[in-house]
Amino acid sequence: MDESKTRAERIALKTRRKQRMVRVAMGQEKADLVLKNATYVNVFSEELCRGDIAVVGGLVVGMGEYSGLQEVDVSGRIVAPGFLDAHIHLESSLVSPYSFARAVVPHGTTTVITDPHEIANVCGVGGIDYMMSASEGLPVDVHFMLPSCVPAMPFDENGERLTWRDINAYFDHPRVLGLAEMMNYPGIISGDRTTIEKIVVSQAHHKKIDGHAPGLSGHALDAYISAGVYSDHECDSFENALEKLRKGQFIMIREGTAAQNLEALMPLLTPRYASRCMFCTDDKHPYDLLHRGHIDAIVRKAIRLGADPILTIKVASHNAARYFLLNNKGAIAPGYLADFAVLDDLERVNVQMVFKRGVCVYDGRTVQAREPEIDPDILSVVSDTFHLPELTPSRLRAGETMPLMGLIPKSIVTRNLGTASGVNPAEDILKLVVCERHHSTGHVGVCYVKGYGLKRGAIAASIAHDSHNIIACGVTDEDICAAVNRIRALRGGITVADGGQVVAELPLPVGGLFTNEPLEKVNEQLENCKRRAYDMGVTEGVDPFMTMSFTSLCVIPSLRLTTQGVFDVDGLTFL
Amino acid sequence: MDESKTRAERIALKTRRKQRMVRVAMGQEKADLVLKNATYVNVFSEELCRGDIAVVGGLVVGMGEYSGLQEVDVSGRIVAPGFLDAHIHLESSLVSPYSFARAVVPHGTTTVITDPHEIANVCGVGGIDYMMSASEGLPVDVHFMLPSCVPAMPFDENGERLTWRDINAYFDHPRVLGLAEMMNYPGIISGDRTTIEKIVVSQAHHKKIDGHAPGLSGHALDAYISAGVYSDHECDSFENALEKLRKGQFIMIREGTAAQNLEALMPLLTPRYASRCMFCTDDKHPYDLLHRGHIDAIVRKAIRLGADPILTIKVASHNAARYFLLNNKGAIAPGYLADFAVLDDLERVNVQMVFKRGVCVYDGRTVQAREPEIDPDILSVVSDTFHLPELTPSRLRAGETMPLMGLIPKSIVTRNLGTASGVNPAEDILKLVVCERHHSTGHVGVCYVKGYGLKRGAIAASIAHDSHNIIACGVTDEDICAAVNRIRALRGGITVADGGQVVAELPLPVGGLFTNEPLEKVNEQLENCKRRAYDMGVTEGVDPFMTMSFTSLCVIPSLRLTTQGVFDVDGLTFL
Repeated sequence: MDESKTRAERIALKTRRKQRMVRVAMGQEKADLVLKNATYVNVFSEELCRGDIAVVGGLVVGMGEYSGLQEVDVSGRIVAPGFLDAHIHLESSLVSPYSFARAVVPHGTTTVITDPHEIANVCGVGGIDYMMSASEGLPVDVHFMLPSCVPAMPFDENGERLTWRDINAYFDHPRVLGLAEMMNYPGIISGDRTTIEKIVVSQAHHKKIDGHAPGLSGHALDAYISAGVYSDHECDSFENALEKLRKGQFIMIREGTAAQNLEALMPLLTPRYASRCMFCTDDKHPYDLLHRGHIDAIVRKAIRLGADPILTIKVASHNAARYFLLNNKGAIAPGYLADFAVLDDLERVNVQMVFKRGVCVYDGRTVQAREPEIDPDILSVVSDTFHLPELTPSRLRAGETMPLMGLIPKSIVTRNLGTASGVNPAEDILKLVVCERHHSTGHVGVCYVKGYGLKRGAIAASIAHDSHNIIACGVTDEDICAAVNRIRALRGGITVADGGQVVAELPLPVGGLFTNEPLEKVNEQLENCKRRAYDMGVTEGVDPFMTMSFTSLCVIPSLRLTTQGVFDVDGLTFL
Repeated sequence: MDESKTRAERIALKTRRKQRMVRVAMGQEKADLVLKNATYVNVFSEELCRGDIAVVGGLVVGMGEYSGLQEVDVSGRIVAPGFLDAHIHLESSLVSPYSFARAVVPHGTTTVITDPHEIANVCGVGGIDYMMSASEGLPVDVHFMLPSCVPAMPFDENGERLTWRDINAYFDHPRVLGLAEMMNYPGIISGDRTTIEKIVVSQAHHKKIDGHAPGLSGHALDAYISAGVYSDHECDSFENALEKLRKGQFIMIREGTAAQNLEALMPLLTPRYASRCMFCTDDKHPYDLLHRGHIDAIVRKAIRLGADPILTIKVASHNAARYFLLNNKGAIAPGYLADFAVLDDLERVNVQMVFKRGVCVYDGRTVQAREPEIDPDILSVVSDTFHLPELTPSRLRAGETMPLMGLIPKSIVTRNLGTASGVNPAEDILKLVVCERHHSTGHVGVCYVKGYGLKRGAIAASIAHDSHNIIACGVTDEDICAAVNRIRALRGGITVADGGQVVAELPLPVGGLFTNEPLEKVNEQLENCKRRAYDMGVTEGVDPFMTMSFTSLCVIPSLRLTTQGVFDVDGLTFL
């Protein structure tokens, strides 16, 4: 509502809007839009219903026989409520919210709930401010869960630290729905005060708290849920999901680029359990978004695996809306937002048209989206995030004996392989480097890595979970420096160096994490970088950038490289 | 939370509480209470689960193996979440919230959502203040929906009128959940501004709006729901309920004293529809409460009629909690309130023990309840509601020709029988009188009535929907005056007069609607009054007080008697 109006004026305005809705619903006035001859998914009675759908002021007002100023005949198709992604880090798409929205609207997505965890690790609340500004007025509603674990570990050298006092100011924003995935479950179950405080603050605002507790079970799970964690998206077996569901958590069935749990969790997509479930992607990378889709891809896969189509669409739309108390979303009924995905049928589930608040934003060819204007002060915060000296080979500890980290194909878990005394491409022993880039500390962590496969040159990225320092892996110190220094010059990106030259790159100027370019262009540049990386020897089954980006995340076993050296996750010590 | 504390202090306090919950859940400390060897209803997975239930600070923290400072062995029994009544007018029990709570705790009720519509018609916001004070700290949580239609009709001479500005101040009270049954559906669908404003205000506070729209269908139902009405408790056929459910309303299946819809709505108690349904009683009279029960009686009846017991208990507990966003109620799981009904089994559904916030409030014999202290200023408002002159026979228009209202046994609908010219007990033509009692206007409405059956004397009551003036029906003007004047002296009640003397009475000193006496005593007095009334000739199938009390409610066809004369509901005019 317009803040310049008095309360009484706002009530009068809303009352006039309602009066118009009533007149249209009664058939006394024409609707703004009518979808004629619709066959639509009724999530309440779990069936297909038929009728014209009348829309006024962006809201559905009636189903039956209606006429409208604009009429769209949808006979022969299926109208579903627009899809919701219950948990995503938009940064993982490598594009801005604007480019993301343009990419997912054709897949029927009309709402996403994002956790701006990555950019908050770089820019703190400035990153949250940016994401909020950059997601205003898009054809996809972007709601926020506030990052709960920034930094991921207390010793991490990230850009900013967020306490409950930092996030507290954001709970009153109308698009903030709660506290994002509470990854620090060891903190919760050990009763850590500063961790539990964040939950208490979110509850004091009557907001949701999402969970992240892979494999947690028994008393520890009871303790974690008791503390106030209402959902989980880390279930990879039906047994673990069922335990969490029985103890009251909502289950977000995750199908992202890195982790895909739908197949294991198919027994949840049955009448007994489905009302406690929703879909999420967590992380979606450009190629995957472009070529497989978004929530629609999960719907297709679930139906292919045998789930009931109506139930599946309800899980994809209504259930997340109910969980997040988005009470006018996720259904086609009077009073609900006119967010629709028009599908060809319930087998192929191809999205043919998309309506957002009663406006056609995708007609099978073009996507309607206006780019948000962002305050220059906010923009400058996310555009100036590289503060580090130029990297020189002297910092890279040539020839020293250092720990050796072992990569495992198709996994982000690593092994402790003891030590090595130098790079040896013949034995696949390479140098791994993490350069602190937020506060010009000059800290550089170095170790050896086995399993990456590179035979020459170096690869670097400013995406390195969760602190997003610059990470690089290479054969020669010269190429490592070239790759890292190019990222410094670009103020973010992914680079491939060979023979002392950068031979491929993807600039990521927003926080060093993503760009405002269209997804298609980003995908092309990224695929080019990947091709170069594989040409230079990177092992099949290892994603040259994604696998590397997780080698600095100190919550996954066994060894991790930080700006301060190698951390042994099993022993919780620096080596 | 304690208002005297700073925000930071409150967060610190809640954090310490959570830390204790975590320690108990982890098994590191003893719980306050453990229900040992429980078989409990899991509303999430819709099954019976087994384990000890650990409780700390009134909240469940874990299910499994636990030990506690207090342990109660519940082996062989079924632990269900406490029951919720989704819609009731507490005044209809004829007792105060304290006496009501004592009466329903043994039936497993732990939460009711009340609409203080009756007392608001008498005392306005003073009546709401009283109900809030009088329901503090009871073993049954009393939540409020704010009366939406006071008075019922614009011309009604009730005690106070409530505009949106009057109710607006109450939305911030933690026990206020929204706007109560919007009975004025003609106002909504005709776009009446002052009616729609109340919905807009409730929505601005993110609150619920309950409906009341018997038989509404098609475009008119779309319009009513579009305006923002989320539920209905007036469905008496599966077809009407299904139309409302399909259009997004939650269905409250009503089983009260006057209206019983469960049998007709049994098809809703199936997996496809049950998640959109809950139970309510609307009105429960003393005899019915004492001898049949409360929500437990609905559960028993549903199971007897073939509903699945687990699903039925979920409808009786979890679903209303979810609808009203009482997110820590209606389930047995970590973080939920320890509100339990311990049942003998799932066939007989006899309540054997009841726990409220982890305290045993009913052990099969005694009920634990502390009487709330009520501010004398608030008490004086509801104790001084009779402002009318003494009634004399000269006001009763002896021998005049006046309209004749026809009663129908077992119905509150009346017929227009033309006119009569005098009382004639032989032909069952009696005098019906309504005396304005709020503002000393001296208005007295008089007409004749057929079908009541009284052969001598008179009967009077200060319960007369919805304005609650004094209503009386009698053979002689002398007895009518005696019965009415005794109510005036008692400051509220029900009276039976015979031969110029009051021969039976039930004092109702709170707003003229109810009393603070125990339900058993009230029931005894009321049954005594009824016996007298039947002895004096009242027709079988007519409730001497309830049937009479509805003859003044101008929203039910055909004739109604007001303080200003006979109103023709069909023609919307005074005769």
